[in-house]
This record gives sequence, structure tokens and C-alpha cells, in this order.
Amino acid sequence: MESIVKQSLLYDFYGELLTEHQRNVYEDVIFNDMSLSEIAQEQGISRQGVHDLIKRCDRILAGYEEKLHLIEKFQETKQLVTEIRELTQRFQETNDRKLIEKIEQISSDIIDL
Amino acid sequence: MESIVKQSLLYDFYGELLTEHQRNVYEDVIFNDMSLSEIAQEQGISRQGVHDLIKRCDRILAGYEEKLHLIEKFQETKQLVTEIRELTQRFQETNDRKLIEKIEQISSDIIDL
Repeated sequence: MESIVKQSLLYDFYGELLTEHQRNVYEDVIFNDMSLSEIAQEQGISRQGVHDLIKRCDRILAGYEEKLHLIEKFQETKQLVTEIRELTQRFQETNDRKLIEKIEQISSDIIDL
Repeated sequence: MESIVKQSLLYDFYGELLTEHQRNVYEDVIFNDMSLSEIAQEQGISRQGVHDLIKRCDRILAGYEEKLHLIEKFQETKQLVTEIRELTQRFQETNDRKLIEKIEQISSDIIDL
């Protein structure tokens, strides 16, 4: 199975494309930290059934990212914005005006993405 | 039909979820500026068939955005980054250090989105 962090991120972006049933079970695992046995009992399916459903959802969600790369695109943007924030902090310490030009440049790069 | 700008944006985000045939026809309309009759001839289908295919693709693509709101999320981010760029330009004119704090704040807001 995927790591919980990766699963949450994929779910956050593409979860709405799963069926309601898939979403309920997936959320119980990822966000409500329920065990497969607990979910199996709650949903009236076998433990193996829950396991298979999660793996299937993992594959579906990963498949969307493989096609669309929107998480990748978002993370790239956030990485650049993190750089901007660091540059403002460095400017406050150093007063180096080159840093402001750098911020302007990174902003333009993001806008053109 | 949707406007070309909206169609391109939707296609840019979600086009990979269409079939290859749908993509070919959609691209001919949106990016290659071909007429429905030209495409009909090229694809060996009726003009009405091309028209219906485009409308169906419009609906599919708009349906993804309705569920995922990822274009909306991206545009919100770009709007904030545009503000950052404007603030750097204003700083270069005014030297007002409050503007730098504002940039730092907006960066943090984007990172927490």
C-alpha cells in the first residue's frame, strides 16, 4: 500500500472521482485510522474485501496523477513560493535589493507556469 | 459551446482523461482552428457527429472541474502570486518595508492553501 501521506494527498486531489462507497471506506482508513477488521465489520464485507478495495482506490487515484500530474504541478508551485518566503526573510536581515528582483523573477515564472 | 479560452484551460488540465479519438478531434477544433466540416471529412464522420463529440467532451471536462475544482485552485494561487509581483514592483518604487511583510504573509497563505 501507499504511505498515508501519499494516500491523503492523492485523495485530497482526486478523491471526488471515487464512488461514495469507496470514499467512505478510504476515509475510514486514511483519516479515521480504523483497522481493516473494524471497517469490514462496519461495512458488512470481509477483511480481504476491504484490503482489495483500498488497493483498488490507491491504483485509481495514482492513475489520475499519472495522467494529469496536477499534484506535481502544485507542489512545484508551492516549492517556488517557499523560496519567495525565504527570500523575504533574508531581505529583512540583509537589505540586499537583489533579493527583491529575485522574488519578482520567481513570481513571473510561477505566473507563466 | 464553451468559449475557446475556457475550453483550452479545461483541456489543458483534464484532456488526458479523454480518449485518444476525443483528444484528436477536440484539439483540431480548439488548437488547430479547423471547421467542423473539415474535421468531419478528415475523421469520416458527419458534421453533426463532430458537433456532438465536442459538446460531449465539453461536458466531460467541465464535469471534472465541477468535482475537483483544480483549475479554480490554481487560478486562486496565480492571483495571489500576481499580487506578490505587484508588491515587489511597488516596493522598488516606494521602499515601503510593509510591502515586504505583506509578501511574506501572502507566501505563507499560499503554502497553507
